[in-house]
Amino acid sequence: RSLWLYRRYYSNLCQRTLSFTIYLILSLAFIETPSSLSRTADVRYRSPPWEPPCGLTESVEVLCLLVFVADLSVKGYLFGQANFQKNLWLLGYLGVLVVSLIDWTVSMSLLCREPLRVRRLLRPFFLLQNSSMMKKTLKCLRWSLPQMASVGLLLAIHLCLFTMFGMLLFAGEKDDGQNRERMTYFRNLPDALTSLLVLLTTANNPDVMIPAYSRNRAYAIFFIVFTLIGSLFLMNLLTAIIYSQFRGYLMQSLQTSLFRRRLGTRAAYEVLYSTSGDGGASPRGVGVKPQNLLDVLQKVQLNSFHKQALIEVAASLAPAPACSGLLPGGRVGQQPLFRTKDVHPPRPEYQSPFLQSAQFLFGHYYFDYLGNFVALGNIVSICVFLVLDADVLPGDRDDFILGILNCIFILYYLLEMLLKVFALGLQGYLSYPSNVFDGLLTTVLLVLEMSTLAVYRFPHPGWRPQMQGLLSLWDMARLLNMLIVFRFLRIIPNMKPMAVVASTVLGLVQNMRAFGGILVVVYYVFAIIGINLFRGVIVAPPGNSSLAPANGSAPCGSFEQLEYWANNFDDFAAALITLWNVMVVNNWQVFLDAYQRYSGPWSKIYFVSWWLVSSVIWVNLFLALILENFLHKWDPQSHLQPLAGTEE
Amino acid sequence: RSLWLYRRYYSNLCQRTLSFTIYLILSLAFIETPSSLSRTADVRYRSPPWEPPCGLTESVEVLCLLVFVADLSVKGYLFGQANFQKNLWLLGYLGVLVVSLIDWTVSMSLLCREPLRVRRLLRPFFLLQNSSMMKKTLKCLRWSLPQMASVGLLLAIHLCLFTMFGMLLFAGEKDDGQNRERMTYFRNLPDALTSLLVLLTTANNPDVMIPAYSRNRAYAIFFIVFTLIGSLFLMNLLTAIIYSQFRGYLMQSLQTSLFRRRLGTRAAYEVLYSTSGDGGASPRGVGVKPQNLLDVLQKVQLNSFHKQALIEVAASLAPAPACSGLLPGGRVGQQPLFRTKDVHPPRPEYQSPFLQSAQFLFGHYYFDYLGNFVALGNIVSICVFLVLDADVLPGDRDDFILGILNCIFILYYLLEMLLKVFALGLQGYLSYPSNVFDGLLTTVLLVLEMSTLAVYRFPHPGWRPQMQGLLSLWDMARLLNMLIVFRFLRIIPNMKPMAVVASTVLGLVQNMRAFGGILVVVYYVFAIIGINLFRGVIVAPPGNSSLAPANGSAPCGSFEQLEYWANNFDDFAAALITLWNVMVVNNWQVFLDAYQRYSGPWSKIYFVSWWLVSSVIWVNLFLALILENFLHKWDPQSHLQPLAGTEE
Repeated sequence: RSLWLYRRYYSNLCQRTLSFTIYLILSLAFIETPSSLSRTADVRYRSPPWEPPCGLTESVEVLCLLVFVADLSVKGYLFGQANFQKNLWLLGYLGVLVVSLIDWTVSMSLLCREPLRVRRLLRPFFLLQNSSMMKKTLKCLRWSLPQMASVGLLLAIHLCLFTMFGMLLFAGEKDDGQNRERMTYFRNLPDALTSLLVLLTTANNPDVMIPAYSRNRAYAIFFIVFTLIGSLFLMNLLTAIIYSQFRGYLMQSLQTSLFRRRLGTRAAYEVLYSTSGDGGASPRGVGVKPQNLLDVLQKVQLNSFHKQALIEVAASLAPAPACSGLLPGGRVGQQPLFRTKDVHPPRPEYQSPFLQSAQFLFGHYYFDYLGNFVALGNIVSICVFLVLDADVLPGDRDDFILGILNCIFILYYLLEMLLKVFALGLQGYLSYPSNVFDGLLTTVLLVLEMSTLAVYRFPHPGWRPQMQGLLSLWDMARLLNMLIVFRFLRIIPNMKPMAVVASTVLGLVQNMRAFGGILVVVYYVFAIIGINLFRGVIVAPPGNSSLAPANGSAPCGSFEQLEYWANNFDDFAAALITLWNVMVVNNWQVFLDAYQRYSGPWSKIYFVSWWLVSSVIWVNLFLALILENFLHKWDPQSHLQPLAGTEE
Repeated sequence: RSLWLYRRYYSNLCQRTLSFTIYLILSLAFIETPSSLSRTADVRYRSPPWEPPCGLTESVEVLCLLVFVADLSVKGYLFGQANFQKNLWLLGYLGVLVVSLIDWTVSMSLLCREPLRVRRLLRPFFLLQNSSMMKKTLKCLRWSLPQMASVGLLLAIHLCLFTMFGMLLFAGEKDDGQNRERMTYFRNLPDALTSLLVLLTTANNPDVMIPAYSRNRAYAIFFIVFTLIGSLFLMNLLTAIIYSQFRGYLMQSLQTSLFRRRLGTRAAYEVLYSTSGDGGASPRGVGVKPQNLLDVLQKVQLNSFHKQALIEVAASLAPAPACSGLLPGGRVGQQPLFRTKDVHPPRPEYQSPFLQSAQFLFGHYYFDYLGNFVALGNIVSICVFLVLDADVLPGDRDDFILGILNCIFILYYLLEMLLKVFALGLQGYLSYPSNVFDGLLTTVLLVLEMSTLAVYRFPHPGWRPQMQGLLSLWDMARLLNMLIVFRFLRIIPNMKPMAVVASTVLGLVQNMRAFGGILVVVYYVFAIIGINLFRGVIVAPPGNSSLAPANGSAPCGSFEQLEYWANNFDDFAAALITLWNVMVVNNWQVFLDAYQRYSGPWSKIYFVSWWLVSSVIWVNLFLALILENFLHKWDPQSHLQPLAGTEE
């Protein structure tokens, strides 16, 4: 019964339901009270946001929470009492669920007007709890904290030392009109610290040195030495530390998963062997009867092509071993079985010689090249028209020729698809992922083109489809046309260095889930905190500034002059974009300054800690992931050796 | 005779002369015609620069070139005809020298008024040619070019694709007052490309998305996806490629040098053995007579302490081996010999018990701690006064208390130094590098304090030393006081993670010469090209703007409004700073824009190529160096194994 529950729980359906629930509860933040359903986040232009009625999101939420309760109880049953109490993650899960449910009850009893929703902050925990990779990454991060702290200490010493130097250097300046270095950047201790902290991220690089440097060249040395030591050296040291902690991590997890898979295969083989062994095989001939294997294969969930190919291989192997039709054990038998991945179904066979030659013609890869060539022509035509149209005002443009050309290209793609289907058969056509992509694109393009023609009629001179919403239907068609570019990505694996790069990309995508998940968690937590702290802090400038922006009076480079009004924390989507902009680091001193003015000096702590978490730690973690993946692909020899070692 | 020449050539004197000559000829650029000897590089304030008379720098230059000619001829003689013709570096050396001499003759015959000096561009070659590490690094770079080109291709495709997308997205906008995205960043193809290239470096991050994002949230996705793929992913892939190429490089060079040293030691041992062997030693007892070793030690260039210690060890080892006073060969004999590095001379011995206890007291390391504590107090006092003085105008400050305090601290440092000399003896005191630093600092502080007192009299209430030049003598004393901070760096090796970090730093410094050299070469070449291209292009704004900067009319964020006037290419020092500012990447779109307006659209090529060379390639190379050094220090096991392998 427990095994049955285990199998049900780890079945695709259950796990997908759980994932869906997690993403559903996370995405509630977009709809909840500071809802993100307005067209723009700009405080000057935005309309009053839609308020969800009390009980709508809450009912969805309680359903999600009930799913989690069920999940937790199944997990607890599977783990058993003793293991459950030892597992901190499960205990945390329980705690978070209890707090969430209590909080939910409180907010329902207050009719959704409670000031603070604790459970919103706790939601990312569900995501974290559900992924073992994320937990591993977090553990890895925790291990590297001491080293990071030591470099952080060095950075802090460096910062403080240079702040003191800077204040000493610029405090003694004469106080005439030119003494702007002291007045702007080194006015007092917090200002000087902030200036140099921002310089550490190079976000105010030439500006901070300009007033002093204009007076005397020698001042530049101070700033250059600071940047060299801090930004180039200490920051990169931090990267090195994170990478060195992280280096073994991927290999280890790969080893573990490979080891488990091999163990599973071996165990399955042993089971098969023991069931066939009682049939009275000779004790020397260790192996599995092909018939048993075939029976098993019928029950396994596999792609039908692959299953077919495997069965064929097994059948062909059957008479080969001398010892009475037993498949040899170990890897020798497995390798021919599992090396049959690139199997495509056979082409349809036509009788007529004309059809056969046509099949040869359109099935040949030169035909692919022709298609690529036409796609290139398509892109070039779009680009040429874009460049030509750039100087013309949007109202005066004439899309007649381009419309005709587009029709022709789409007809060609349709023709190509049909011919390929004819040559390879429908199943054969679909067994190439590139063809699936082409076919999908062609279909979508066809539908779009049809609707364009239906809405705007056939192209005629002076033909200019109207805008509708963000993009006209016609522009959408052009945009999709450009996706044809991805056809060229097929050429990449044929070039050696490109192939390594491409396989790095693919390997990355597999590992990205854990990293992306951590990023989502961090963004979510900081966005919710930010909304609670800074919601409504940024207020629109007085006057109806929607037509003529009245930013003439604001100093250059300030939040108001740069019109960063949309970067606020008034709803979840806007908070995410604001956090992204701070994470990219460029111009983040503007945010520091603006929120200091609007909200108070303590807002700096929020932004600096976000910078540390996202830009310093996460970006370095990502770099470490890329390095690890690339080196793994590039130099597999050094990684395969320990892998081989685990096998013995 | 050839051997004698070889020894003379590779003697310290010759090599130092050569290095000095190289740096001399490189530093000529600061004095040559666009001379950097003005106080500021700002076009608004700077005085007309000093023009060196024709023949001054040229005569220095020809002397340097003659040294190089001598160097080349000696090298050619040592290499021999056949090797010389095969060595491309030497042939290039010859070519560069010939071109330089011809160019020099031309410029002398034109009385220094030639339009272009080719030889200035060629000068960094001398630096490159003289360092084998730099040549190796260059070779390593050349190897990784194919991979870098493939990622560069991906980047270019990415850039072009998104440019097209962007133009398609923003070209169709309605042309009312709000259509600023198209007008500012996506006006035409070159503008759109530049905007996205700059976004790739994140230098215009929030700005470029603001106009579109203010209109609709969804536009932000375009920019975020672009930055994610381009800046986070592809750029880091480039780092990974450079690192993977570079990974073996350091280890290899370390192995080679270690191998060579061991070979040398072994060969020396063999020579000693053969000279002693003919004395009739038993064929079984393989070894060297201690007497011979002592004779050799007398002639070797070594620190006298170390030599003394080695001789003692050799003498003590002499009776130990049974086989008639021969030192055993191989590593067994070498290790006790070479493990005597941390030897300090003995302390002086005093007769009186009072002096002895005083010696114990002041020689104890608790006394060091007391010194550190006092230094901490000194720093804290300076910081407190800085923070207190920050709000007071410079003219009204009263430095009376600080002056008194400083006197006391300096007296304490002097006392500490004298007591330590008394306890350890002068030689013992000097054998600790930290003491040397302290002593030097104390001496300089004493001299400065004396001169301060002589100039400004003793501190009295209202005492406020006058400014003289950049810093008053008194501020200089305070600045030096802060160098006391470096006393605390001594504590670092006692903490485990700090120790790794510190040893990484030290390992880096050893490898920095090659990297710094390459950076110098790159800066030099680009600065000279920049001077030739853009000299005098930036002109001062009209009107006497030295008092009231007339930048009210310039748009915010432009070169003129930000007052980047000092970032020009009018002399060598200014060009270096400008290149540094572009290398740091932040706000480099301002430079792109300004030089495009002042000099023409082709100037972009110069800046973009500088960005590629410095910020993309060199910074990544530096990161690779740090990674390699850190991993080497962190996980020495994996590196020591191949090292041990070479020995067998």
